[in-house]
Formats: sequence, structure tokens, C-alpha cells
Amino acid sequence: MSNYQAVNEEVLMALRTAVGEEHVFCDAEKLNQYKTDEETDVRFHHLPEVVVAPANAKEVAAVVKIANQFLVPITPRSAGTSVSCGAIAVCGGIVLLLERMNKIIELNEDAMYMVVEAGVRTAEIQELANSKGLLYAGDPCSSDSCLIGGNIATNAGGNKAVRYGTTRNQVYEIEVVTPTGEITTLGARLNKKTTGYCLEQLVIGSEGTLGIITKATLKLLPLAPYKLDILAIFTDLDQAIGIVPVLVKAGLNPTSVEFMANEFVRSASDYCQLRLPHYEDGHYVIITVETFNEDELEVKMEQLDELCNANGATDVLEADERVWKIRRNCLESTRVLSLINSSDDLVVPVEKIAYTIEHLTKVAQGYPFKMFTLAHAGDGNLHFTMLKGDLSDAQWESELERFHAEAYPFIYSMGGRISGEHGIGAKKIGPMEKYTDPVEMQMMKTIKQALDPNNILNPGKIFNL
Amino acid sequence: MSNYQAVNEEVLMALRTAVGEEHVFCDAEKLNQYKTDEETDVRFHHLPEVVVAPANAKEVAAVVKIANQFLVPITPRSAGTSVSCGAIAVCGGIVLLLERMNKIIELNEDAMYMVVEAGVRTAEIQELANSKGLLYAGDPCSSDSCLIGGNIATNAGGNKAVRYGTTRNQVYEIEVVTPTGEITTLGARLNKKTTGYCLEQLVIGSEGTLGIITKATLKLLPLAPYKLDILAIFTDLDQAIGIVPVLVKAGLNPTSVEFMANEFVRSASDYCQLRLPHYEDGHYVIITVETFNEDELEVKMEQLDELCNANGATDVLEADERVWKIRRNCLESTRVLSLINSSDDLVVPVEKIAYTIEHLTKVAQGYPFKMFTLAHAGDGNLHFTMLKGDLSDAQWESELERFHAEAYPFIYSMGGRISGEHGIGAKKIGPMEKYTDPVEMQMMKTIKQALDPNNILNPGKIFNL
Repeated sequence: MSNYQAVNEEVLMALRTAVGEEHVFCDAEKLNQYKTDEETDVRFHHLPEVVVAPANAKEVAAVVKIANQFLVPITPRSAGTSVSCGAIAVCGGIVLLLERMNKIIELNEDAMYMVVEAGVRTAEIQELANSKGLLYAGDPCSSDSCLIGGNIATNAGGNKAVRYGTTRNQVYEIEVVTPTGEITTLGARLNKKTTGYCLEQLVIGSEGTLGIITKATLKLLPLAPYKLDILAIFTDLDQAIGIVPVLVKAGLNPTSVEFMANEFVRSASDYCQLRLPHYEDGHYVIITVETFNEDELEVKMEQLDELCNANGATDVLEADERVWKIRRNCLESTRVLSLINSSDDLVVPVEKIAYTIEHLTKVAQGYPFKMFTLAHAGDGNLHFTMLKGDLSDAQWESELERFHAEAYPFIYSMGGRISGEHGIGAKKIGPMEKYTDPVEMQMMKTIKQALDPNNILNPGKIFNL
Repeated sequence: MSNYQAVNEEVLMALRTAVGEEHVFCDAEKLNQYKTDEETDVRFHHLPEVVVAPANAKEVAAVVKIANQFLVPITPRSAGTSVSCGAIAVCGGIVLLLERMNKIIELNEDAMYMVVEAGVRTAEIQELANSKGLLYAGDPCSSDSCLIGGNIATNAGGNKAVRYGTTRNQVYEIEVVTPTGEITTLGARLNKKTTGYCLEQLVIGSEGTLGIITKATLKLLPLAPYKLDILAIFTDLDQAIGIVPVLVKAGLNPTSVEFMANEFVRSASDYCQLRLPHYEDGHYVIITVETFNEDELEVKMEQLDELCNANGATDVLEADERVWKIRRNCLESTRVLSLINSSDDLVVPVEKIAYTIEHLTKVAQGYPFKMFTLAHAGDGNLHFTMLKGDLSDAQWESELERFHAEAYPFIYSMGGRISGEHGIGAKKIGPMEKYTDPVEMQMMKTIKQALDPNNILNPGKIFNL
């Protein structure tokens, strides 16, 4: 990092020439606005030296060339919804906004694809697809606010990943500005290919460190016209989570399998002022099934009902919008209980979720904070929320650290990882470097150094060089 | 390439120490045996200097270290079923056999995965999975003879890719020996993760140039108990191929959509001494649908029948093993007509297959060879077979080259690529370098040079350094 140069008047001049004077910002208010993403802990904040908003890939490439010439780091920024400090300019330099690149370029209904610029809102893509009887299957929980470029850069997950996979499974090709400022297209709108290295999958999920994604061709799927949400309620945690492999093996191919532990059921029901059965003692599992004909839906509905009952469900109900409202408001609801919280994004093999939740819930009982549990259960992806409550800053920090020092090695011993869908960003570099196999880590660093010799793109993310 | 050293006694001694004397071969017969893979054209053959057969990843790593120390190239070899000269030691040096690593290490029925060494036959994996009511969805046409390591290294396709994707979609994690002789595991048995670069997808499909795959954890799926093969016969080519997007949009999710042009129907039917309807004038489309319950199968069967008829099918039959026998013997059947043939492995966006086949069939009429057409139509993957017949060697070669010089740019103009599932190997480097975007090509080379500074692993494949 030490070789970076300060953004001086010469750099600003070059940037103004590249993207237009009105799209280069260095007033205090603007810099302050971009000192963080979703991160509320001020210790992670960092002011950029300049914010630029290019209009297209060519202008992005020009900015990257300038950054290499003057040795100024770039932090690309989509909607800034990262919860891993992924969009914070931890080394200063340039924050590069993609939000002006917000056009949907093409929707081809027959060939079922959409070409979009990086700054298009994910919800807009979903809605446009739906309006044509098609599905864009990427569905991060922040879809109303996040932008597609960020989804691709972080390989965002969400509620439908159990059936359709994460964002990397929804992308045919990406237009990328390389770390040295060249423009290329990686991938192709093809169902298969074996023509050299699969560079699109390397860049997808690389959190802006190997390239800035400026455009993408997204897969669309036929929209299943029949849909059913089931709420299966269990009083036994093990049985609640145990339903997941049963559904998979039965070939039910659910679109969502979402788990809320009872603490979340209570806090979120209170928050929404809603009461569904077994508020007091129920763990909720929401199961969504979608089909292309009505008969198939009925068959699956019966099958689901039988399977849930056979596996110990206390109650199996047809769910409505209320249960999704409760699900969506889980995190919000904990803020009422504690202003400051910390979330984890752990992932384990699906059949190990039950044991993982049980074990870590027990571990957490040895700590002075409350821990609430949510899971994209069909994916083995757990979100623990720890509530600071009235702990002192110092105690909160040290207890959290102590908990992670117990939890993370356990997760790795289960074959798991410390991020399922949020990414490493700047925030999780410590455990990433600690727990990743050194040969794998060295391969990542070798590739980064080869493709980005000046370490220009999003330095201080995923790992430190 | 020029820096490579000859395999001398010192190298042989080191290799014998690493893998055991009885697993190091340099007799003429053995070297001759490994001078080619499926390639019959002697101009592409090349003798290795030594053949080694390590027993495990540790021994593979030892061989790679020796190769780096003495600057000797390594060509990893699975079953040698490559049709792109992928397993030919074009730079001489070591051929490294994976066939001794032939153990199935673990099959977990509940968690639905299998851990296998690289040298296990693909058919053995399929059969074992099936015997437990599970499916390994990778299904290259050579599955009876090919080994899983080679499938992964080339991202093999096959008959089921339209529903399940290619080999890269069937793999959770791979154990890899890096180009410098370190052992690591890339990927994880998880449904999602965002912990740094997706190195497993980079190595998968890299044709042995970025790592030698020694072990893999494969995804298994529930085996659908109900299955139906439909043979839809069309006399109009456009309508035959036009059925593909119709099936996809209807959400029928077929397992296979295989297309045989009438020339292939006739030659393969003759070869198998079988007669199905419209032998004289029919293009055959085999559609396979699999479901988890009988009612669903019936619903889909009716739907299929209706869709095929509405889209111009002359006949829609329930197919039996005979039609698959015809399909499997297509290539064999052309050998009766012409001893020497050449095959292409083109891929285009699915909705462009009909036009591509029509156009290139017309183009081929300007050439003095016959051209027969097969397609994994559901994937947009075309296999043209050109028959040499009684052309002279020189004429055959120059006409083929002239045809490719017309066909390949057309394929790229359709958004297609020159390999859907066979890989580039040594054979297609020319067009690969000619038609690949230079920035993309440079990224590949930069990564290769960074990870394999001595260019030890499978040099002379995909591109020339």
C-alpha cells in the first residue's frame, strides 16, 4: 500500500478530463457521504480523496488508466449495501460510482436474457422480467436497493439460491474493465463452452479486486405460474432443520427454505404486530414451491404436508404474506432490542446445519450477549445476530472476538466457510487469512498481483498483499 | 518452450525415487503407446520421453517438483479420450498417468456426494450412484471409457447438460497439485460461498494447464424414478430445431434434447440395421423427460406431444432403446462411408442453432466433402462430421481449412465459440488465438505465467506462450 500517491491537482485534472468536471467530487460533504457502506462502526470508516461517476465502460477504463499512471487506488462502489466493508476506500484514493450506468440495454423474451449496465437496481431487473412472464433468479434480500454490479462482484445469494444458485449462476457474460484499464467481455451467452479459462467465474465474486464489471448479460428463466408458501412449525430445533435434506432427497426442488429460530419469531412478530401460531415456542420454516402446472403443485403440496408431519412438524399451514413480512423484519426487529448488533454469515454443508446451530447456540450461552438465529436453511447458510445490549464497547468487542475464535474454527471443522453470501470485504480479512489454506491463499495473491501489478483495484479487500 | 531440458538419467533417477521404479517407463513400446490420444492423424502425434504413473497426490506433487527442478514439461493424461490432442505431449517430456488413482473414497447417500480419485471411470461413478437411487449428472458420450479427472479438466459435456449443466456444475471441490508442486483443495462441499476467488472454476476446464486434479468431491442428485423418451420426427429442419426454445419456455426441463439430421439417421440406421419411421426424410429429435412422480410424467408427456405436433412434427413416438442405439452409433456409421473424417464441436446460443445449421449446411455444399450434422440441441452444441471420402490428403486438408475459415468467423458472429465440450487442446490453438478477444487471451496467459512460471503443466495447449 505504501507506494500509493496522494490525489493531487494533476490527478483531479486528468479525472475531470476523463469523466467531465461535473462528475468529479472532492467537497467534504460528498467525501463524507462515501466514507462507509452499511457499516455503522466508525472504526471501519475511511474517507476517499475523490469520488468519480463515469458514464460508461470507456470512462471507467480511462479512470483506471489514470489511477495506474498516478498510483492511486480505486474502490468501485455499486449501491453500497455491503455489510463487510466491501465498498469502503480503506486505502483512500478514488471511490468510483457505477450508479450512472443504469440502463437496461436489451430484454430478449424469446432467447430469455437481459443485458444491463452495472448500475441497474436488482429489483428493476426482477420486475421487468416478471412483467414478461420471466424470472431473474438472483434475489438478494437487499434487492430493492442493491445494484446488479455489486451482486455480481460479491456473488450475492438470497432467498432463492437453494433452487437457482447464487448470482454467479445467473450470469452469461460480463463486460469488465481490467485492473490495467482494458475493456473486455468474459463469458458468453452459451449453455456450454470449453474455450480456455473460465475467467468470468474468476471475476464474479472477486469483490472488485480483479476487474470492474460494467455490463452483464443475465440469464432469464420461465416464470413458474403456480406457487405455494408453506409454513411448517416445529418446537424441536433438530426436527425443524432436519426437514431440509428430506425435501432435497424427495426431489421437491423448493425455491426457498427459510428458517427462523423462535427468538426471531418472537422479536419479529412483535415488531410487525403479528401473531401466527406457536409464537411462544415455534421455530418457523418457510418452504416455497413453484410449478408449471396446477396438478403438479397439488401433488407437491400433499407431499410437503406429509413429509413435514412425518418429520415432527407441530403445525403445517399454507402461509401468506404475513410470514414473509415477519421474515423480512427479523434484523430490524433486533434493533429495537439493541441498537448495536453484529451479524455472521456462516455456511456449512446442508446436513450439518442442525448440529451447527445447536452447538453454536450452546457455545453462545457462555457469552454475555444474546444470539438470534436465521438461516437460508436450504443452502446451509446461517446468519447469527449477536445483540450488544448494555455491554460496554470494550467488553462487547472482546467477547465477540472470543466467540469468533471459538465459532470460526468449528465452522471450518464442519467443512464450512465464514462467508456464504456477504463476502470478505475489509472486515473479515483477519479470519480469511487465518483459516484459508495457505496454498489456496497464495494462488489468489499470485493471480491478483499478476493481473493488477500496481494493486489499484479495491486494495485491502479479501486479503492484504 | 525453448528452455526445456531433455529427460536424462538424473531426471529418471529422481522420478524412480518419487513413484517407484516399476512405475517409470521409457521403453519404446510404452512411449509409442502414449504418443497420441484419440487423434488418428499422425502429424499431431508426439512421443513422450518418459511415462510415469504416480499412486497419489503426494507422488504427483513430487513429480511436478522434479519437473520444475529439471525444466521438463508434464502432460497429464486421464483416459486419453481427447479429440483435441489434449493428452499429447507436444513438447515431449513426461506423460503423467492418473489411472492408478482409481479409488472411490466415499459415497454419502444422505448428504448426496461422492469423493473419488481422478482415475475413476465416469461410468463407474454413474453406476454406483444409480445403485443407491442417486444420479451423477455428468454424462459425456465417452463415459464408458473416460476418467473423471479428464472430465473435470476439460469441463466435459454430454447428453444431460441441457438439464444439469456440464461437468463444472457437478463438482463441489477438487484436490489439485499446482504447477509448482503444492497440494491444495479448491472449492468446498457447500451450496454457496463468497470467500475469495472461485479458483475451482478457474482450474476446472483449464485442460491440465493450471493444476493436476487428483481428487474430487462430486455432487449427486436424487434419481428421478420416472422417465420417458420421445422421438419427434420432422421433415423440416427449421421446425425440428425450432422445438428447442419451445420446450425450454414451457418449463419442461428436459434431460436431453438430441438432434440427428437425416443423413445421420440414414447412415446410423443402416449401420445398426434398424428401421424407424421416416428413415428416408426425417430429422430425429430425441427428447428425454424425467420426473419424481407418475402423474407429473403423464402431464409432461401430453404437453410434449401437443407442443411437438403444434410445431410441425410429422410423427411423435414413444422412443425405446433402438433410437439411442442409432444415436450412439452415428460417428461409427460414418467410418463405414469414409475412413477418415473430421469433427467440429461448435456452440451457439440455443435460438441460433437452426439458422447456424442451415447456413453452414449451405456453405458446406460448396465443398467437395459430405457433411453430416448432430447436435446436443438443447445446449446449442453442434457436431459436424466432414467425410474425407476419396479426396487426396492435400485436397482434404486445404478444403477443410478453407471451410473452417468460413465457418469459424460465422460462429463467432453468432456469439458462438469453437468448442462446446471437447476443449482446445493442441489441435485448435490456431483458431483459438485468432478469434479470442486479445484482452481475454492476455488475461489467460498472464494467469498461466504467474501460476506456472516454468510453463511445466501441459504446455502447447489452449494457447502458445
